[in-house]
Formats: sequence, structure tokens, C-alpha cells
Amino acid sequence: MIKLVGMIDSPYVRRVAISLELYGVEFESQPLSVFSTFEAFSRINPAVKAPTLILDNGIRLMDSSLILNYFEAQAAPERRLLPVAPDALANDLQTLGFLLAAAEKAVQNVYEHHQRPVEKQHALWVERITTQLLAACREWNALLKTRPASADPDQVAVTSTVVWTFIQSMIPHVVNAADFREIQAVAESFESQAVFKKYPFN
Amino acid sequence: MIKLVGMIDSPYVRRVAISLELYGVEFESQPLSVFSTFEAFSRINPAVKAPTLILDNGIRLMDSSLILNYFEAQAAPERRLLPVAPDALANDLQTLGFLLAAAEKAVQNVYEHHQRPVEKQHALWVERITTQLLAACREWNALLKTRPASADPDQVAVTSTVVWTFIQSMIPHVVNAADFREIQAVAESFESQAVFKKYPFN
Repeated sequence: MIKLVGMIDSPYVRRVAISLELYGVEFESQPLSVFSTFEAFSRINPAVKAPTLILDNGIRLMDSSLILNYFEAQAAPERRLLPVAPDALANDLQTLGFLLAAAEKAVQNVYEHHQRPVEKQHALWVERITTQLLAACREWNALLKTRPASADPDQVAVTSTVVWTFIQSMIPHVVNAADFREIQAVAESFESQAVFKKYPFN
Repeated sequence: MIKLVGMIDSPYVRRVAISLELYGVEFESQPLSVFSTFEAFSRINPAVKAPTLILDNGIRLMDSSLILNYFEAQAAPERRLLPVAPDALANDLQTLGFLLAAAEKAVQNVYEHHQRPVEKQHALWVERITTQLLAACREWNALLKTRPASADPDQVAVTSTVVWTFIQSMIPHVVNAADFREIQAVAESFESQAVFKKYPFN
């Protein structure tokens, strides 16, 4: 069976887990950490990157967007999580671009504070990535405002939800939820759905 | 006309520039830096991420894999840079996963040394990402060895070439070219092609 290696507390692992469920792809979750179980992880994938997805034929995929690219291409039309029409696809990729930029800067913030002793933390770098993080959240919030609401999770809904929950769980003091009401509303509505509850953050 | 914002010294910007040429998509290059021209860049994209691609309708795409996802989906069959058959696609995405992991760790190495004063550089972090970088290069090299050679650049060839040239230009003391002969051979052969010379590293 397909194996998904990585902790669900990573928004990248969680977006893949929930997307696979929505595609109807069966898989086994192997919650290894790239930090506390580096050695065990490196025996599966020497580059030690989560998520790593192992196909039945042994092929190892990594990078959540590349993994989802593969499954989106195989999905039956009614299971697809991205639109096919060019303009609609561009719109969704634009939103994903901003929200994945926010995810990247949020992860960099967490790593700066959790993976370095205080004396190795660089205030100018934190200032730079915080500016980028908040700017990306503003664009993401504005883009969600222009989307028609839907109860069916698509890729924008899945990734918005898992990234926002990650940000609000890890660095709520950096990104004030009250400033981003559209994102907050999308995340709240989808976190209550069964498929999101099946792979909860923490 | 489509605009590609970012410096060609970024392997992510360069892979998009060369891929667009191969897709036959006309575009204008705007070589802004996310560091030295942060303010000017932020007026185009407040998240200040390169590459940023601006479509004719104003939609801003970022993240090289998402940008290429969009153009790959619109490409005529004979222009595609990724295979359609699931097994072949998985194979190429596996190679891209490892080589983009190498790119990420190489960029982190460069940022650690160029974006932080010496006293804020963290030796344990550098050790960790160097282990990951070299492991990713070993897998990437081994996977290229199993590919039939071709003079026609596809996405694996394009990205292998630009990432290797970046690594060998920026941190050759970290990644010894002689240890990765397959990657070196692919990069050498494609760097001599006109489309790669049109967007040279530096």
C-alpha cells in the first residue's frame, strides 16, 4: 500500500493526507519526524524531507506540490481538486502561491526559534520573513474573499485550512487571526468536516 | 505580455525562463532582486518571492513548480516537458523531488552564509542541511544514471542543469563535482544548448 511518511503537524504532510482521502486513494500513514527520528527517516529517504510518499512500485515522491501533481493527474474528473479551465486554474494557483508563501515564511519563523539557540537567531531575518508572511496573508485573505463559498473542499480549501491551522497553532502572536477573517472562516468551516478531523493537527 | 520577475541567478527563476522558451511562450524578463530591490519587488508582489510570473490578465503566479504546472497543462502534446503516462510521470517527479530538495538545501546554505553575520550562523544547522544536500545529490545522480540519454531537454533535464550550475557556481566546496558524474554530464551537455545560453547563470 502507498505510504505517507511524515508528521501530520506539518501542513505539507497534512495537505497530502487530506487530499489523498479526497482523491479516494488508500494509504498508510507513517508519522516519522524529520527531527526526532532523523536516522529512521533517512533510511526511507536519505534527503529526510516530509512528506515523502512511497508508491507501491517503490518510487519515492517528495515535495507536497509534486506529490499532488501526480495524484491530480490520475484523478477521475469528479475527484479533481483543481480546475481544468485555464483561467480558473490560474486563479487557484495564484491563491495557492500566496498561501504556500505564507506557509514557507511561517515554517521559517518556527525553525528560527525552535532549531537555533537564542544567540544564533537573527532579528533582521525574522523581521524580513514576518513582513513577507503578513503580506502573503493579506493577499491570500483578499483572494479568498473573491471566491464563491463552497462546502466541497478543493485544493485551495484544503491547503488554506491546513496552513491557517498550522499558523494559528504555532505563531498566533505573529499573525493575528482577527485581521484575516476570510481565511479564518474558511479554516473553521473545513476543520469541522470529517476528512479534516481524521487527520487533525496535533 | 507575460512578465517573469526575478533574477536568473535563482535556479527557480532560471528553470521557469528556460521552460517557457521550450513551451514557446513569449515573455518579458524583469530581473529584480528579492534582496537589493526588495521595495520595488514588493510593489509587484508584496510577498517578495522569485520567480513571480504575471499573466496578461494580471494574475500573479509564484512558486516555480506551480508556475510550471500551469504552463505544462496548457502545452501542446509535442511541447510537454513531463510525461503523461503515470509510471513515467512518477519517475520524473521522483527525480525532480530529489533535485529540488538539493536545490532547497543549497539555497539554505547560501542564505546561511550570505544573509547572516558570522556570529548568527549555526554550525549544527549547516551540518544538517549539508548531510541532506549530499544525500539528495547521490539519489539524483543515481536516478539520472537509469534514464536514457536524450538531447531534447525535458523538465528533468532543464531543472537538473540549472540546479547543478547554481550549486557548482555558489558552493563547489560543499558539493564536489567529481562525485556526481551523471549530473555533471547532463548539465554540461545542456548548458551548451542555445536556450540555456539565452538565460545564462550570472
